[in-house]
Amino acid sequence: MPTILGQNQYGKAENRVVKITRDGGTHHIKDLNVSVALSGDLDDVHLTGSNAHCLPTDTTKNTVYAFAKEYGIESAEQFGIHLARHFVTSQEPIHRARIRIEEYSWERIATSDANSKFIGADDVNHSFARKGQETRVTQITYDGERWEVISGLKDLVVMNSTNSEFWGYIKDKYTTLQEAYDRILATQVSGRWRFNWTDDEQRMPNWEKSYEQTRKHMLQAFAETYSYSLQQTLYQMATRIISHRSEIDEVRFSLPNKHHFLVDLEPFGLKNDNEVYYAADRPYGLIEATVLRDGATAQIPVDMTNL
Amino acid sequence: MPTILGQNQYGKAENRVVKITRDGGTHHIKDLNVSVALSGDLDDVHLTGSNAHCLPTDTTKNTVYAFAKEYGIESAEQFGIHLARHFVTSQEPIHRARIRIEEYSWERIATSDANSKFIGADDVNHSFARKGQETRVTQITYDGERWEVISGLKDLVVMNSTNSEFWGYIKDKYTTLQEAYDRILATQVSGRWRFNWTDDEQRMPNWEKSYEQTRKHMLQAFAETYSYSLQQTLYQMATRIISHRSEIDEVRFSLPNKHHFLVDLEPFGLKNDNEVYYAADRPYGLIEATVLRDGATAQIPVDMTNL
Amino acid sequence: MPTILGQNQYGKAENRVVKITRDGGTHHIKDLNVSVALSGDLDDVHLTGSNAHCLPTDTTKNTVYAFAKEYGIESAEQFGIHLARHFVTSQEPIHRARIRIEEYSWERIATSDANSKFIGADDVNHSFARKGQETRVTQITYDGERWEVISGLKDLVVMNSTNSEFWGYIKDKYTTLQEAYDRILATQVSGRWRFNWTDDEQRMPNWEKSYEQTRKHMLQAFAETYSYSLQQTLYQMATRIISHRSEIDEVRFSLPNKHHFLVDLEPFGLKNDNEVYYAADRPYGLIEATVLRDGATAQIPVDMTNL
Amino acid sequence: MPTILGQNQYGKAENRVVKITRDGGTHHIKDLNVSVALSGDLDDVHLTGSNAHCLPTDTTKNTVYAFAKEYGIESAEQFGIHLARHFVTSQEPIHRARIRIEEYSWERIATSDANSKFIGADDVNHSFARKGQETRVTQITYDGERWEVISGLKDLVVMNSTNSEFWGYIKDKYTTLQEAYDRILATQVSGRWRFNWTDDEQRMPNWEKSYEQTRKHMLQAFAETYSYSLQQTLYQMATRIISHRSEIDEVRFSLPNKHHFLVDLEPFGLKNDNEVYYAADRPYGLIEATVLRDGATAQIPVDMTNL
Repeated sequence: MPTILGQNQYGKAENRVVKITRDGGTHHIKDLNVSVALSGDLDDVHLTGSNAHCLPTDTTKNTVYAFAKEYGIESAEQFGIHLARHFVTSQEPIHRARIRIEEYSWERIATSDANSKFIGADDVNHSFARKGQETRVTQITYDGERWEVISGLKDLVVMNSTNSEFWGYIKDKYTTLQEAYDRILATQVSGRWRFNWTDDEQRMPNWEKSYEQTRKHMLQAFAETYSYSLQQTLYQMATRIISHRSEIDEVRFSLPNKHHFLVDLEPFGLKNDNEVYYAADRPYGLIEATVLRDGATAQIPVDMTNL
Repeated sequence: MPTILGQNQYGKAENRVVKITRDGGTHHIKDLNVSVALSGDLDDVHLTGSNAHCLPTDTTKNTVYAFAKEYGIESAEQFGIHLARHFVTSQEPIHRARIRIEEYSWERIATSDANSKFIGADDVNHSFARKGQETRVTQITYDGERWEVISGLKDLVVMNSTNSEFWGYIKDKYTTLQEAYDRILATQVSGRWRFNWTDDEQRMPNWEKSYEQTRKHMLQAFAETYSYSLQQTLYQMATRIISHRSEIDEVRFSLPNKHHFLVDLEPFGLKNDNEVYYAADRPYGLIEATVLRDGATAQIPVDMTNL
Repeated sequence: MPTILGQNQYGKAENRVVKITRDGGTHHIKDLNVSVALSGDLDDVHLTGSNAHCLPTDTTKNTVYAFAKEYGIESAEQFGIHLARHFVTSQEPIHRARIRIEEYSWERIATSDANSKFIGADDVNHSFARKGQETRVTQITYDGERWEVISGLKDLVVMNSTNSEFWGYIKDKYTTLQEAYDRILATQVSGRWRFNWTDDEQRMPNWEKSYEQTRKHMLQAFAETYSYSLQQTLYQMATRIISHRSEIDEVRFSLPNKHHFLVDLEPFGLKNDNEVYYAADRPYGLIEATVLRDGATAQIPVDMTNL
Repeated sequence: MPTILGQNQYGKAENRVVKITRDGGTHHIKDLNVSVALSGDLDDVHLTGSNAHCLPTDTTKNTVYAFAKEYGIESAEQFGIHLARHFVTSQEPIHRARIRIEEYSWERIATSDANSKFIGADDVNHSFARKGQETRVTQITYDGERWEVISGLKDLVVMNSTNSEFWGYIKDKYTTLQEAYDRILATQVSGRWRFNWTDDEQRMPNWEKSYEQTRKHMLQAFAETYSYSLQQTLYQMATRIISHRSEIDEVRFSLPNKHHFLVDLEPFGLKNDNEVYYAADRPYGLIEATVLRDGATAQIPVDMTNL
């Protein structure tokens, strides 16, 4: 046989699980999209058609739903850890499990005062609207010994309407761009951060609090950086996270420059004093970088922020 | 010629205009997607290739941007009214203008306390995150005499985790559905409401307040209705709007039933006490209806809520 | 009650049904997405929560799959006619059924010569690749007496790289567009055509042949029209259909002008002799019109081509 | 500074370039989406806000359009090679360029016989319909010394309606799947193959012929493999490519198992003899693997087939 099987993995992707927890009349919701990928002693499945080492993807789906009942969903990270540990420790041929999770957040719908009085506050705490802002993501990888947890978010669109410049760049024969001293800076954040928790012996981070704080620091850095390039803003966002969150050693961002071009209104006898912009779709600048805590080793793959 | 030209319209669609208004260091943002459709004395354009009556779609685009400067964007509705009036009154061959607008809302990014002290609160009020929840929409139609304004929203996902039943329905030979006495009710709201403002002589509604209040009443009705069908919930949502908002005479909703199926955990020896659900994509029930103020005439087209 | 229930309909949307027909070793495939919408005596469902007149959407789904077995899928149109007739004639409260269907086409994968010899041609006629070009659509409506069949297609992208001009249009104060005497004309066709078959007593069209021929005439008219505007091309496309297909009385197109802008290469010392174009996304001109056979009445709704 | 800048890259993404070549009245079209990513001595851009080493993303866009004129577009691969070489050799701070290209293919619209006679065949060879099947992709990476070319395709949906089984797998406490002895096997192919051309001294492959042949062998292997798992089919598809195409050393596929579930028609008194299927969306099995020519080293990243 002139060919060799290289890296391979399989599992059920995009298992949509919603968990409702009832605390009297007050309900809580966790809404996840869980993808399982397993690796191990699987050469025969590919080479001979023998499925003796293959746990069906359907079974990995069932396990996701069963675990939502058995363990609850405290956080996406904790749920992924339960799943990854199970697959690696319960099936001899499975040596490595990677669990990717998207989480959609919901907010409560406030009820009318009249109604609250009538039916009691408890009775109506079961209504939710999906927030629809960023999607929270995490990836848990376990090989039976060490954990790798990379969390983050995607599709969070942010804008600074001033405090952004871009000038002093290389001009070659194909350069026509005019220098800008007051422009809009907008991007759709896709970010991932890797935790330094790798071992069951270590104390586990508080995943929910970590997410909330990391998101906050990232947004503040975006808002507070006077920017000379999106690269510089990216670096500040990542550095702010590493400075404030000791549980995180590595951050990677993929930031499309969502261009807002000042519209030329002069043909109509109007002056556009940084007021009216055209929001462009394509093409867009795409700025990507990893920032590491001093001494840490890069592990987040280049394309992970593009998924 | 054996053929006849029927209804026709043309214009530039999806003009993405962002307007920044500066109030000292505090910036405000309006973010719209504006589509223009013009009708009138346009037979020759289609039949002979003469463009003598054709205002180019490129010109309609330019007008959108110029008007953002000339009139500002007080509300999507008011902006659409300026545009529709302009096209109909300034070009003799144009007899009717329909302006469709999507609006994306943004919220301010809170800056860190330390930073606020250092640079002053005013200096950092130019940072925004896109809310990403529903898209607000409006459609303005003007024929030179009367106005039709239909506003609404789309892509607002809501859920009640209890207080929903479905039973007592027809059973025919193809019916296998089990009756449900406590189910999740979830939908992605697409709604449109028509204003009874039709004439420049009438006092114009406060478009921004109307939207905010209509949305609130609609969500409260969704949360507070004990539901025996999504049809019943829809009717309550629409009725609540008409009861509370005298400026609105007609409401239409298109509500996909975003099914959340209880997962059967019995094969794993587990009991699923309304806790673990599978969120399905397709197929989905689709419930659509118009509700009118007594005496009003239906004008919202059947498929408008599907756009 | 200050409100009145207007037009309403419900049913299961997007039932994905794939039918395999085996003719010895040669398989045939029909791949549909079927949406059911029923109307009738349904006020109580909305007003009182009584479901006594409600055939569950789940039952309409089951019926789609059962009918794929009972009647086969000769064509999307014929399949929709079976379904619509069933719902209206079998359930007293249902007075009207509208069936919308999308159809995805597949082509056979050619096998290697060596293989064909070895295993026999019959054995390998079960492999298909999805064509992925246009989506064929149809809508069947039945009220117990008359039929309305509107078929068509969407997402068919076409381009003429020459034989298109645009000049002689209105110039107002917002016009900056330069006249064009040789431009690219490209669009993503969304078209619908209404058949004059309305009655079981009439001879039914050959739906498969009609689609194939209508598509061919439409494309030829696009290719062969020397165009002075997309409106003119649209009119020719529709007229060609009505002239050649006696079973069709009305055609409506929604044609986005997929702009291909000539790139200005002069800053780089290069001449762009209609060679290098930038394919833009938004905004786009949107040209929509209905064309009727002389004497026919317009029935295709304005927004139907936007679905 | 407690943080360190890791891997970083930037450039203009999704430059949509269409090139028309006129051979008398017969036109040819190349339709690409080109994304540029540059790396090198760019620390200052991130750390200090100095853009002295930054070639603007806008310039990389201009270069794409200028090169379409200067070099033409013989193939996506050849075009990417021109671009990558330019950026690395013309700008001292740029040490590495990665060009990603999507290519959309078009087919000619056949004109009517009558028309062809009238206007001459040459006159109408400028009309095209977008094929809309797979998207062809390539990625060119150059560091000034060695080339890496990884080509492939995505979104090609294929199906075998028989000759697929799945049984003999692990059964654990979460397994409920029934064994299958005749099932549909369908997938949406995302594949990448790496060329062993790495050096300007080597003879360059014929990129167009290589694509056409690789696609053919891949499809034939899919059609001709009697399958016991999608893993086994994947391995056969990759092996067939490496066996037949000496220019390719490594192949990676990401194959979602597009489940087609047999519908249970027994409740309706019908037998489903492998005829009527429900095409499911989510969740789906996801099978991914790399296959290498014996002796080759794996270079295609795990997530590249997910882009």
